Amino acid sequence: MRKWLAVAEDVAAGLRTDAAERDRRGAEPVAEVAALRASGLLGLRDWTTQQAVTRVVGAADANIGHLLGYHYLQVWRGELFDNPSFDPGEDLFWAGVSNPLDAALRLTPTGDGFTVDGRKTFATGASVADRLVVSATREDTGQKLTFTLDARAEGITYLGDWDNIGQRLTASGGVRFDGVRVPAEQVLGEADESSPRLSLAALGFQLALSQLYVALAEGALDEAARYTRTMTRPWFLSGVDSATADPYVLGTYGELVSDVKAAGLLADRAAAALGEASDLGADLTAEQRAAAAAEISAAKVVSTRVANHTTAKVFELCGARATAAGYGFDRFWRNARTLTLHDPVSYKAREVGAYFLTGEHAPHTGYS
Amino acid sequence: MRKWLAVAEDVAAGLRTDAAERDRRGAEPVAEVAALRASGLLGLRDWTTQQAVTRVVGAADANIGHLLGYHYLQVWRGELFDNPSFDPGEDLFWAGVSNPLDAALRLTPTGDGFTVDGRKTFATGASVADRLVVSATREDTGQKLTFTLDARAEGITYLGDWDNIGQRLTASGGVRFDGVRVPAEQVLGEADESSPRLSLAALGFQLALSQLYVALAEGALDEAARYTRTMTRPWFLSGVDSATADPYVLGTYGELVSDVKAAGLLADRAAAALGEASDLGADLTAEQRAAAAAEISAAKVVSTRVANHTTAKVFELCGARATAAGYGFDRFWRNARTLTLHDPVSYKAREVGAYFLTGEHAPHTGYS
Amino acid sequence: MRKWLAVAEDVAAGLRTDAAERDRRGAEPVAEVAALRASGLLGLRDWTTQQAVTRVVGAADANIGHLLGYHYLQVWRGELFDNPSFDPGEDLFWAGVSNPLDAALRLTPTGDGFTVDGRKTFATGASVADRLVVSATREDTGQKLTFTLDARAEGITYLGDWDNIGQRLTASGGVRFDGVRVPAEQVLGEADESSPRLSLAALGFQLALSQLYVALAEGALDEAARYTRTMTRPWFLSGVDSATADPYVLGTYGELVSDVKAAGLLADRAAAALGEASDLGADLTAEQRAAAAAEISAAKVVSTRVANHTTAKVFELCGARATAAGYGFDRFWRNARTLTLHDPVSYKAREVGAYFLTGEHAPHTGYS
Amino acid sequence: MRKWLAVAEDVAAGLRTDAAERDRRGAEPVAEVAALRASGLLGLRDWTTQQAVTRVVGAADANIGHLLGYHYLQVWRGELFDNPSFDPGEDLFWAGVSNPLDAALRLTPTGDGFTVDGRKTFATGASVADRLVVSATREDTGQKLTFTLDARAEGITYLGDWDNIGQRLTASGGVRFDGVRVPAEQVLGEADESSPRLSLAALGFQLALSQLYVALAEGALDEAARYTRTMTRPWFLSGVDSATADPYVLGTYGELVSDVKAAGLLADRAAAALGEASDLGADLTAEQRAAAAAEISAAKVVSTRVANHTTAKVFELCGARATAAGYGFDRFWRNARTLTLHDPVSYKAREVGAYFLTGEHAPHTGYS
Repeated sequence: MRKWLAVAEDVAAGLRTDAAERDRRGAEPVAEVAALRASGLLGLRDWTTQQAVTRVVGAADANIGHLLGYHYLQVWRGELFDNPSFDPGEDLFWAGVSNPLDAALRLTPTGDGFTVDGRKTFATGASVADRLVVSATREDTGQKLTFTLDARAEGITYLGDWDNIGQRLTASGGVRFDGVRVPAEQVLGEADESSPRLSLAALGFQLALSQLYVALAEGALDEAARYTRTMTRPWFLSGVDSATADPYVLGTYGELVSDVKAAGLLADRAAAALGEASDLGADLTAEQRAAAAAEISAAKVVSTRVANHTTAKVFELCGARATAAGYGFDRFWRNARTLTLHDPVSYKAREVGAYFLTGEHAPHTGYS
Repeated sequence: MRKWLAVAEDVAAGLRTDAAERDRRGAEPVAEVAALRASGLLGLRDWTTQQAVTRVVGAADANIGHLLGYHYLQVWRGELFDNPSFDPGEDLFWAGVSNPLDAALRLTPTGDGFTVDGRKTFATGASVADRLVVSATREDTGQKLTFTLDARAEGITYLGDWDNIGQRLTASGGVRFDGVRVPAEQVLGEADESSPRLSLAALGFQLALSQLYVALAEGALDEAARYTRTMTRPWFLSGVDSATADPYVLGTYGELVSDVKAAGLLADRAAAALGEASDLGADLTAEQRAAAAAEISAAKVVSTRVANHTTAKVFELCGARATAAGYGFDRFWRNARTLTLHDPVSYKAREVGAYFLTGEHAPHTGYS
Repeated sequence: MRKWLAVAEDVAAGLRTDAAERDRRGAEPVAEVAALRASGLLGLRDWTTQQAVTRVVGAADANIGHLLGYHYLQVWRGELFDNPSFDPGEDLFWAGVSNPLDAALRLTPTGDGFTVDGRKTFATGASVADRLVVSATREDTGQKLTFTLDARAEGITYLGDWDNIGQRLTASGGVRFDGVRVPAEQVLGEADESSPRLSLAALGFQLALSQLYVALAEGALDEAARYTRTMTRPWFLSGVDSATADPYVLGTYGELVSDVKAAGLLADRAAAALGEASDLGADLTAEQRAAAAAEISAAKVVSTRVANHTTAKVFELCGARATAAGYGFDRFWRNARTLTLHDPVSYKAREVGAYFLTGEHAPHTGYS
Repeated sequence: MRKWLAVAEDVAAGLRTDAAERDRRGAEPVAEVAALRASGLLGLRDWTTQQAVTRVVGAADANIGHLLGYHYLQVWRGELFDNPSFDPGEDLFWAGVSNPLDAALRLTPTGDGFTVDGRKTFATGASVADRLVVSATREDTGQKLTFTLDARAEGITYLGDWDNIGQRLTASGGVRFDGVRVPAEQVLGEADESSPRLSLAALGFQLALSQLYVALAEGALDEAARYTRTMTRPWFLSGVDSATADPYVLGTYGELVSDVKAAGLLADRAAAALGEASDLGADLTAEQRAAAAAEISAAKVVSTRVANHTTAKVFELCGARATAAGYGFDRFWRNARTLTLHDPVSYKAREVGAYFLTGEHAPHTGYS
């Protein structure tokens, strides 16, 4: 793992140099994906190391951490189908198209496969991807299938309509499919939500989000500390001659650091739980799946609170001048606020509570 | 008061229509100040009504509320000198130049007055003002004087260097004075911080900030409620068919509304305390001044927390799509976060605690 | 009001001297009610002053504040019936018997009135009262009537079964009625929940609870401050030579004091709202009643949080030795925790949210 | 580890049956220590398993978890001296006498050892212990020595003066030493705080406290869940027919469970850090010691918050009737509130912040 952490730190250092400026510009993250590819991180296949490098990259730039985490997710999700034809490649960048709240894409059988039609919103990374994992419903049978596509295949249009206050560089716009060919050999299998194993996919997204929330908090703390150490002036009533000796500054750092550590360990634990569930393969029971889901939802509850709180609070550790637009410190909060709205955290708390109190399993859905 | 509240509501309604767009554009608030002037609000002289209309305007657009609140403040501050030559006019827009953390401006005596030189940062509203209240130090005697200036006087340069993440339309850039003439009759008096009465000025700024914090929270709640009622879709696991029936949405609105109400009442109480202290004129004792200061700091502590929390939390009541840049909902939080950093709230809590515990008076400074 | 506040302060001073010891002993509050009677406070009839003295007495001893607040409530509740036969007396101590969650008491008509039978839990103050306000349901017609009783009337048994962790001196045990005579002239009227005016009674209880929550927080702060000033040793790593100069102690006092002030103002506002609603008499509309209910519920939401938080947090301002049982500082928290469970605050937040978001009226119930 | 966890669960089950009653009675924990001895847990020597069983026992009864955790601590602390004469035995119960805030005990050299005199407060477990670890200062040289004593040795008096609101069964009274003999072979060595290794002892106490805070939160949640499942009635306005289906109950359980899990992982991490530091033996550097100290302080910050919050909040999940004294649910909060005041958590936050921000090492003291 140490080698890959060093690689991730390198990538992170590069991203940090102009993160604020890139956020302002809001361009498609083409260069950033190229940097991920050049680093070799796309081909990393160890679960635990994937989690760790996502956090490192995400702390420097949550946009790119998001792309990387979802890339790992799509590859892992593809592998859940145990379909030998699935080859993730070494340096391909993967993204998915599957917002569960939209109407399903429609599959029409052809001689040797299908064509797919329809439109989806919020397909993070798709427009800068090499390959896509897509789900759609057969018009004839109602069956829901998951398949892969070349992201440049004819008939795919990227709508470029992601213009939100946060995660601006995640290429999360919509995608339109107009009669796009899906060769039979690219079908991974039936996306059967009742299967404990296949339904792990949704948990993977939930976990990735928690890791990014933690990364955002870690990144905000790091950047704030650099600023406090070098730029913040001691308050004239503080009686100390450096902001790094101010009792309130120190106390607040201590509280934030402690909370972020705890949230990070809970995300790690959730990652381990999902890794273990995934490793059980077809043997995974509904109860084991529910236990993993509860760990992941617990991580979501804590990391949501911690990410929003930390990214806002650090400003008090830097002082008024840190609100200058040039620093772009608000990007941590804007990213956190945007990303933590992915799905309502109150229903995650509810899930954790129900599992604890009555053993109730979270339903298998696109979000749980 | 009812008449002026209606006027303020009118102004607010106008500001609301394009608040997000104006925030994005970030132009100087020339048209907005013109609207304030046209409404007649600039000439309003009743303390309690001033407070109320500042909140109404500030809820719609905290930038313009800021300008209006500080305008009232400068006029009131001018009057603290009891100098009959001070005439605020009926429709002049006032701003101040006095960041206490900068080096003082320098006054050089001339035959019939002074010239003033130097540079100050963060002079909210100055570049769009008609008149300025300025403080500077006599080079010869070290005495600190407060005086008024025509904001267009020769030798005044507005630096236009305010580019921060929030309160973007407050024209809070720096000002440079190069040999600007200060006729003797424009000198209001000595800015004597040891005087309980004159030192009320700093408390006025603290109070105005609290009012704006409350206004920001009120404005965010109002705008969120409009969105929840019309745009938010019920969560598919909620079992209800409208977001306005979701138990978590309702519970969270209830908590925020309750907290904002409490913060508003505390700001009102602080305003009343300062109004009463101001009305005591030269009789105001140091103890009475300290009691008012504690009320104002208490309001600052509560409204700081409430503004930051509310403007961030409302997103959870609207849902993920409310992060679309077009809505500009993040402006409430960016404004709150920027404005609540004016000076460190931990030292306000300290002041309140010290006054409660030992009766210690807050020192007379530019911030307390 | 000033005179009565002084009287209340006197009573409070007396209660404070042995509040911890009386809490430990847990005897019936006979002497305490006698002290209230002797002070003249029982005959006080001004709404605003009643609220203020309840807070003063409740801060010193929330048990006795509870008895006094509920006494005022029962008298006011009796007057809502506009029945000229109702005479509260000058120095009678009133209590009520009406837990809405129990089965109703049963009224059987007799020649000249009724007999009442049944059992109720949690009748605060009843066993030490002179007079009771009681509600019961006619067996023959199903009509719910409210009437007064001499608390010593034959057939009334006080069960003495209140043994809870907090509010131990409130005589809140159950009451059994065995064929107790209810003369016709003691019937105040029909307890018609659909009447906006009569249904104010439930709001009165909610308001009284909020006032006591605030009082508990105020009392805890006062007692903690006395301890910090005289007993707390500076922490050896603090670098200051008195606990009253510790930056964290001061900052935390400041936050608590500020929050409690805000909660107190919100309770005052709620009291004013209910007073105004009550003064409207039969003209009170359902909408006006709902607006008052929302103010009262908002006060409940804030004061619940503040009371629980403050009464627990003050220990950190005193230090480890303040946990010695002799000080009995935990009584503030035990009282707050017990009293704030009267009915679930989450449903109060829900009410406030619903009224704000959609204008929905809280239902008329025993709790709203 | 599994075997010992089962043993601990057995002990815990026994303690749970009468925990509330024993708390009320407040007797010396003689039978409880006997139960620990009988279980074999006293002889357990694996660090990680010690931590886990302390949590299990502490969740059932934080008093007895405290005694067990401190017992492990004293044995481990004895071993830090690397003195071959130290033999903890298999079934001896150890306690310590060393409150750093008291004046030091005095050692007078005799022919073959010392006599010890003086008085210490808060010697948890000493009065029910078999053996004591004691620190005292040589009158002649000023050297501070640590030594063991038979807890029944002549001249030792247990003052029985622990009467506090929480941790009532921890036998934490004071101890007086009147000319107690300390044979030379019972001297473990010099208690040199400047030694990274020996100064780990203070961190051990800090860690044990965090484990108990987490245990208190876990225990409160478990007991509350049992109550909610079996006793709590659904609120009549909830629209659900069981408290276990109430959205607010579920959501709050979910938040608490998630937070407690995170706090538990952070305590586990801190335990691992201290275990690793301890295993380094004499090689331990000041920097490594400081890193472990920061982990432990972070755990203290989070677990303090979580323990106080959880033990208070669970009441809302049970309802008003759960305040009946018979349930004794307040013991969790009283224990948490008492134990979390051991030393001020604000200075732990400060330590964490300083280490994060500037790398500053926490000083070696009795508390850090």
